[in-house]
Amino acid sequence: MKATAIANANIALIKYWGKRDKDLILPYNSSISMTCDGLWSKTTVEFGNYDEDTIIINDEELKKDEKDVLGHLHRIKKMAGITKNTKVVSESNFPVAAGLASSASGLAALTLAATSAAGLKLNEKELSMLSRQGSGSASRSIHGGFVEWLKGAEDDGSDSYAKQLADKKYWPDFRMIACIVSEAKKATSSRAGMAQTVSTSPYYDGWLKSIDKDLQHMRKGIHNKDFTLVGSTAEHNALKMHATMMTTKPAIIYWALATIEIMHAVMYWREQGLESYFTMDAGPQVKILCLEKDVSKITKNLSELGGVKKTIICKPGDGAQLTKEHLF
Amino acid sequence: MKATAIANANIALIKYWGKRDKDLILPYNSSISMTCDGLWSKTTVEFGNYDEDTIIINDEELKKDEKDVLGHLHRIKKMAGITKNTKVVSESNFPVAAGLASSASGLAALTLAATSAAGLKLNEKELSMLSRQGSGSASRSIHGGFVEWLKGAEDDGSDSYAKQLADKKYWPDFRMIACIVSEAKKATSSRAGMAQTVSTSPYYDGWLKSIDKDLQHMRKGIHNKDFTLVGSTAEHNALKMHATMMTTKPAIIYWALATIEIMHAVMYWREQGLESYFTMDAGPQVKILCLEKDVSKITKNLSELGGVKKTIICKPGDGAQLTKEHLF
Repeated sequence: MKATAIANANIALIKYWGKRDKDLILPYNSSISMTCDGLWSKTTVEFGNYDEDTIIINDEELKKDEKDVLGHLHRIKKMAGITKNTKVVSESNFPVAAGLASSASGLAALTLAATSAAGLKLNEKELSMLSRQGSGSASRSIHGGFVEWLKGAEDDGSDSYAKQLADKKYWPDFRMIACIVSEAKKATSSRAGMAQTVSTSPYYDGWLKSIDKDLQHMRKGIHNKDFTLVGSTAEHNALKMHATMMTTKPAIIYWALATIEIMHAVMYWREQGLESYFTMDAGPQVKILCLEKDVSKITKNLSELGGVKKTIICKPGDGAQLTKEHLF
Repeated sequence: MKATAIANANIALIKYWGKRDKDLILPYNSSISMTCDGLWSKTTVEFGNYDEDTIIINDEELKKDEKDVLGHLHRIKKMAGITKNTKVVSESNFPVAAGLASSASGLAALTLAATSAAGLKLNEKELSMLSRQGSGSASRSIHGGFVEWLKGAEDDGSDSYAKQLADKKYWPDFRMIACIVSEAKKATSSRAGMAQTVSTSPYYDGWLKSIDKDLQHMRKGIHNKDFTLVGSTAEHNALKMHATMMTTKPAIIYWALATIEIMHAVMYWREQGLESYFTMDAGPQVKILCLEKDVSKITKNLSELGGVKKTIICKPGDGAQLTKEHLF
């Protein structure tokens, strides 16, 4: 009745932005990501004779009003017919809720650990679908390497899950440099941000109409290991997502000064022949896409910018896995 | 054969973005602006026995490859049947081509001075239409106060001109604080930026579909002197314009670090009850909309931000006028 799982965060190259079903977490568009070996969450779940369900994330007990994680735990307990209370301890090696996909790694690790502790034997497709219901992007963290979350068409979500496009060994010199510019918790959650976008942005229609082309370019770019196509498509797609947010009422502007600083720097380096691209999620952090040969030059350049507090260099990583090293 | 005109720049509250006819400068959408008393261009035109056409802007002779101003001068000479060469001297009290609408004031002043020197008697509608062909936004600088440039529907541009919504005395406590964050000439001209937007942004369609609502809100806001409606509509519209640019291929990102710094500051002040809104044109400068009673508090707050080099406080200003004070 106890299991521990480790899952990597994933950073979307083509973003998930907007839900067609808020309860089942079904997206309006498919998305593609890279699972990052450097950004992990580790979660131990035990069902036992506890007085109540307790969830501790990074040494802090989850408040009862933070329903998402608790709701997901209850979903799994219900599936497995478990009535005992639960102790969950989770830790991540990066700031939570600051636009570094902590919910993806956290909910994927929780899903795998909890179903395993409960004795459920789920395959990867089932794990992905179940993780999706905890946090949409968690569906992608079940797999390693490059991953596509299929939006699906069914109302019950049975065809909305992630599949692997290529494993972590496929493109070993692909790198993503996560630039931490702020460790503050963001003012608007991804969930609230995307709901506001769908209901108020005059550009959300343009987002949906142009997303298939982005997805095609990204699949082709990954298939051909065409770094220019992957990078330019990812950057364009990220700018499109942020552009939809800026046009909501009220506007959501996740960018900090350092976000713009890094964006301009990346564009300038590219003009100078140092090929790199940026992407940002629902937060101020910038993730730079590059190839291994340019990492040292780019990190040196980054160290000269004022706003970069920390960099984490990621390569394509593993999908969610069970581990014997329990957290309690 | 010599005349001098002074014209104020105007800052759009609802932006002009995208041309349906590049030669006649006919826009896809109507726009609304405030003519700013603090940002002027003064231009003296003389037709005489000069060896060639010479145009001096802010003490610098215009290069022969900068066709816009010269082309406009030739248009007016042709209209008036003038064959003599021309000397033009123009000066502005603010940085040229950095997103402070220098082409609007410059081309409006040139149009009025040149037609006057040529002995043409044009009414304001004709002056606006003619100025429009030099630079679209110049059509609005012919008038003072709050101005709408009607997009028109005719192919020949005969119904595309600016009209005054309210004169400069109508809303005397309305203010616009132009925050200069960079005096560098921008990398992408407005003209190139909007052409690239129309041809490559997946959001340009959403811009056009949502513009009528913005125009309605702005007309209503000005009519009712509803500062909240004017400000929030202007801010939303500016963000929409910048959002279209970010999604072009390649992306156009006019914002500097200080641009974002001021945007966040304005949003924060508003949360604290200090009502103000921002708007940005095709450049990094931010223009803050506020009421006179809050100017001193806002300028004090601005002085505490790192990136603001200079502020210029504008109230609704006059339209283009002839003056006896020649520049040579």
